[in-house]
Amino acid sequence: MITSIANKRMKNIILLMQKSRERKKQGLYVIEGMRLFKEAPPECIQEIYISEDLRQDRENYEQVTAKVFQCINIQNRVKVDVLTNVLFKKISDTQTPQGILCVLKMPQYEEEDLLSDENGLYMILEDIQDPGNLGTIFRTGEGAGITGVIMSGQTVDIFNPKAIRATMGSIYRVPFVYSEDLHESIYHMQKNGVRVFAAHLKGSSVYDENNYCRPTAFLIGNEGNGLKEETAALADGAIRIPMEGQVESLNASIAASLLMYECARQRRNDRSRA
Amino acid sequence: MITSIANKRMKNIILLMQKSRERKKQGLYVIEGMRLFKEAPPECIQEIYISEDLRQDRENYEQVTAKVFQCINIQNRVKVDVLTNVLFKKISDTQTPQGILCVLKMPQYEEEDLLSDENGLYMILEDIQDPGNLGTIFRTGEGAGITGVIMSGQTVDIFNPKAIRATMGSIYRVPFVYSEDLHESIYHMQKNGVRVFAAHLKGSSVYDENNYCRPTAFLIGNEGNGLKEETAALADGAIRIPMEGQVESLNASIAASLLMYECARQRRNDRSRA
Repeated sequence: MITSIANKRMKNIILLMQKSRERKKQGLYVIEGMRLFKEAPPECIQEIYISEDLRQDRENYEQVTAKVFQCINIQNRVKVDVLTNVLFKKISDTQTPQGILCVLKMPQYEEEDLLSDENGLYMILEDIQDPGNLGTIFRTGEGAGITGVIMSGQTVDIFNPKAIRATMGSIYRVPFVYSEDLHESIYHMQKNGVRVFAAHLKGSSVYDENNYCRPTAFLIGNEGNGLKEETAALADGAIRIPMEGQVESLNASIAASLLMYECARQRRNDRSRA
Repeated sequence: MITSIANKRMKNIILLMQKSRERKKQGLYVIEGMRLFKEAPPECIQEIYISEDLRQDRENYEQVTAKVFQCINIQNRVKVDVLTNVLFKKISDTQTPQGILCVLKMPQYEEEDLLSDENGLYMILEDIQDPGNLGTIFRTGEGAGITGVIMSGQTVDIFNPKAIRATMGSIYRVPFVYSEDLHESIYHMQKNGVRVFAAHLKGSSVYDENNYCRPTAFLIGNEGNGLKEETAALADGAIRIPMEGQVESLNASIAASLLMYECARQRRNDRSRA
């Protein structure tokens, strides 16, 4: 049983939770909670940490052991450690820890793989800063059936603990890339037949006036400043979400969700007509 | 200049920020930040508190004085006090306080007033718990042009500081009531010709299959548990938002936004066809 926060692996977990740079360097990230643990791909699980309390909780502990066997079957190895309740609470990122925490290998996606979808739907995110917004876009995106997410290098890290929580598990299933050159990525998508629409307060058409049944990408900008003008200029069209009253803008994850579900709606109705 | 947190009014501000019960008893609430201050209805402003730093910031201070004059013109009175920066930081609810905080009288809306809209669009919220979700529903709701929000008594307080922040000012403009008996309110709306649709994972129709051009209300349940069965049973129809992948549910504010904007979309297209 690990009892001290001075333990080398405990120190590393805290680093991995706090520092995006460290996560990138090690290619590892941390998830917490039963739900995210149960959905975690067993081939990516490196280390499992459970609290004494969870060790005593028969139902949950059985689920943990089942997962441990899966990991061993696939990887022939996995590290499992029990932590004192006090220590678990110290390293946990949540107010009421569920007593399970796990170190995972990051998935690696390539832009080319994302583009292999014949009728893709993509979100291109420029400098989204709020981890909750980013995670929610992944969650709603999976629900709307998107192919994947392309993000600028300045976008908040999807492996940030708050972002992971907001994905509610979609982080495991929605492919994504951080683009080194977002303009290049946009150009590349367009060359591959994807029409790119910029969400813009001054968009020339209302968001439901365009047809999204063919390969489509939506470009969403930073919460405070919206899209950079030079990025918006690359798009095939600028679309706006009408707003009544004195509302100046919508929350970024709300705007993204409206666009993704408008596309899903059109494609669903298109299929049912066919 | 107020310097001590032991000051009676400072203690009351902290109470008002922390305790929903206290807000209700006094009929007062607290807002923070320049944006919410600028949009605040001058007839409701009771007390204004600014930090020393803001007092020195010419541009912002001019905006404050302009608002003070408005308050005096309308109410013949207003209290303005400068706080030391240290004290301001202590009572502030935000990490980086903007140096302006304000005590406001609560607005009072009646269910009857909300129902006087000839072609209303209403959100009925049962036990929403997350202040960010509630505030975001108000913000997006104003954008989508809703008439108002009816909430169960167990719904989180919209005057919670986090909820207020998430409204981005819509709290001043979207009418709302906390219903003492939500079932009675639903029945009352229906008697007034409003069709009530329950958002439900097992809804019998997809959300874009119904016509929302006539008076409409959407019923949204608690984040964890959804709508109570007996509440959902009162609705004229149960609608679902299709979800792909392994997504079990959408965030409550996302689901609400998709429904409100689907209604806005239908009404906009209906008008343009007419």
